[in-house]
Amino acid sequence: MSEPLGIGIAGLGTVGRGVVRLLREQAELLGRRCGRRISVVAVSARNRDLDRGIDLSGCEWHDDAKDLARAASVDVVVELIGGEDGIAKAVVEAALDNGKHVVTANKALVAHHGTALAERAERAGLALNFEAAVAGGIPIVKVLREGLSANRFSRVYGILNGTCNYILTEMQETRRDFAEVLAEAQEFGYAEADPAFDVDGIDAAHKLAILTSLAYGSPVDFGSIYVEGIRGVEAIDIAFARELGYRIKLLAIARLTETGIEQRVHPCMVPAGTPIAGVSGVFNAVVAEGDFVDRTVYEGRGAGEGPTASAVVADVMDIARGNRPPTFSVPVGELVAIPPSPIGRHSGPYYVRFTVLDQPGVIADISSILRDKAISMESLLQRGRAPEEAVPVVMITHDTEEAAMMDALAAIAEIPSVLAAPKVIRIEML
Amino acid sequence: MSEPLGIGIAGLGTVGRGVVRLLREQAELLGRRCGRRISVVAVSARNRDLDRGIDLSGCEWHDDAKDLARAASVDVVVELIGGEDGIAKAVVEAALDNGKHVVTANKALVAHHGTALAERAERAGLALNFEAAVAGGIPIVKVLREGLSANRFSRVYGILNGTCNYILTEMQETRRDFAEVLAEAQEFGYAEADPAFDVDGIDAAHKLAILTSLAYGSPVDFGSIYVEGIRGVEAIDIAFARELGYRIKLLAIARLTETGIEQRVHPCMVPAGTPIAGVSGVFNAVVAEGDFVDRTVYEGRGAGEGPTASAVVADVMDIARGNRPPTFSVPVGELVAIPPSPIGRHSGPYYVRFTVLDQPGVIADISSILRDKAISMESLLQRGRAPEEAVPVVMITHDTEEAAMMDALAAIAEIPSVLAAPKVIRIEML
Repeated sequence: MSEPLGIGIAGLGTVGRGVVRLLREQAELLGRRCGRRISVVAVSARNRDLDRGIDLSGCEWHDDAKDLARAASVDVVVELIGGEDGIAKAVVEAALDNGKHVVTANKALVAHHGTALAERAERAGLALNFEAAVAGGIPIVKVLREGLSANRFSRVYGILNGTCNYILTEMQETRRDFAEVLAEAQEFGYAEADPAFDVDGIDAAHKLAILTSLAYGSPVDFGSIYVEGIRGVEAIDIAFARELGYRIKLLAIARLTETGIEQRVHPCMVPAGTPIAGVSGVFNAVVAEGDFVDRTVYEGRGAGEGPTASAVVADVMDIARGNRPPTFSVPVGELVAIPPSPIGRHSGPYYVRFTVLDQPGVIADISSILRDKAISMESLLQRGRAPEEAVPVVMITHDTEEAAMMDALAAIAEIPSVLAAPKVIRIEML
Repeated sequence: MSEPLGIGIAGLGTVGRGVVRLLREQAELLGRRCGRRISVVAVSARNRDLDRGIDLSGCEWHDDAKDLARAASVDVVVELIGGEDGIAKAVVEAALDNGKHVVTANKALVAHHGTALAERAERAGLALNFEAAVAGGIPIVKVLREGLSANRFSRVYGILNGTCNYILTEMQETRRDFAEVLAEAQEFGYAEADPAFDVDGIDAAHKLAILTSLAYGSPVDFGSIYVEGIRGVEAIDIAFARELGYRIKLLAIARLTETGIEQRVHPCMVPAGTPIAGVSGVFNAVVAEGDFVDRTVYEGRGAGEGPTASAVVADVMDIARGNRPPTFSVPVGELVAIPPSPIGRHSGPYYVRFTVLDQPGVIADISSILRDKAISMESLLQRGRAPEEAVPVVMITHDTEEAAMMDALAAIAEIPSVLAAPKVIRIEML
């Protein structure tokens, strides 16, 4: 058996502790599977005195994680500090500059600096692995980069944020509003005190940027992603969705179209009965559609100590076994930028909810504007009557280009008997 | 860029043609992803004159596939002949003996000779890859061997035979009987003229033997699998299953228990609403339950030209990229046999349908036998009344050991007013 592989762990939060625990509890098993032992030789965290419930007496301690990244005993640096810049980036760069492989769970870092870091790793002949950065419980990075690598992908999409999926599932099951369910999720620890990163869609967008690059062999392009979170989803829309045979999910979608690559994160209505519609609570799911393999679906936990540690250690095991696939499915020199397709060019069906004064002629006014913009209605729903009062009217369109839709809605908003800005949710056919 | 990787394809049926087509259509893409070209240099099939709709003029032709396995131009032999022995085995052995990597879609071969072939490959430093042998559209071999490799698995199970799943789905949706749906499936080409291999569960068992070895690092042990096909599933049981909140699926299950490893293929009642219950038609799905990652679910097409070619080429790409994980997750010398747990030791809930004469006392007779065997009933269902006629009575038990269940049913069959052998379907809690 070869020399043990020395692991240095930077960051000892929930995930860091999970990684230490996994590497120790399964040490013998991992050794059998890799043909060499994997052992934690160094750790770094902000506070040495904190009781973390794990024995660190056999490990070097580094107050400065950059020192850990240079330590002679360390072969692989596991970066679990987080954040797109600052210390996390410095540690990863120091590791690569000092001949250490890198495993990271840091989606923000990879979404913002993935291409440059991959180039640095490749030049040095080192691994830069980040399975845990996207849907910890699903080995989707490996699946796109290796398992489905014979395919061109028409579309890759998924539920990539467990907090949002938990909130939307609860809203659906209990018919409560966003604010109330968010407050409860914060109480239960399913949502952060500052939930913006999750509920505004940024976390999902970080992950999407990574998946897009893996699937399409293009440089990571977080900046081009259209992002819309779930704060605007109302209980009434969830109820209408159900009535119309849909569920509302926050989807992250990468799709190759004639105008380029669409990357978007936003609430979607998806047909009930599809695998994605059935993914509930904190679970994540990804669907990859390849030209030869057709539709494939992956579901698992998105986060948490165990699943994330499982992903981090799988990356370490790849290094131990000598597997060095190209970081983003192709060598960095072969990455080819694909022009981003702006959201205005998106085409698909739309759900629109109007709040109108219940009086004759309002539907005719709306319909004539839609006709002028060549937007075709698939169905229209007005529940109940309340003459001269505000009532919701719900419409589903056929495939429509977003720019035309927005023009039409701006015109419709000017109709006096239309009482509020129309509410729009894109429908994604799966 | 390195020298092209020379591929020799033995067998030019649907999958062989698909592999040739894929390797040619995506040649440039695969070259970018692998850092070297992959090119078909030799082929072999029984009939050279058949028009296969693909241009083979640039390839060496070998009438004898064993010659292809020795050809100087060939680096990787792709075995698509099929069959557990005979020519397929001879070709794979010849390839390994002549320093050629092997990729095969042949589940029967791997299920019967996987360990010996893996040892032969390992000794020669060659790859023996078989992603396409199990659920072509799902990269489950790679997932178990690499992506989830940090986990111990408590249970791995799935729907591994598309023909059976198609038949059961149709039976459920159209309320028809097995024989009628099978005949239709044969007409549509979803079932073979001789359907035994599929409907009797052997094909699923071949695949299960492979998954078990990958998940548990044990030698392939096809012989210990308990196998029961779907011929005995009746429309009435599918209807009762639905009423009780279940679906009937042919599952292949590997589970580590206190008495050893259970490997079984049989019709199961699974709770409606679980991911497996929702897998319909020719799709396959696998669920892997790991100690750190928890439950993960994979769904895709099980067979067909495109998905199978995608899996075969992914295996070839692994070879082109230099990825050489141990064939069954650990080196052959580290495989450890786990004692098989016999089906009599299986424990779980059972669905039993009795056909009884509708007269007072029969339920009391059945109940007293169950009580004597310490079998606890969860629910009992008798629909309608038909005094002195045959009626079905359906029972669900709590967890029961199979041996006790069978003893009880043998005793119950002796009751005069029990008119037919009780019908038993195991319930799998997911």
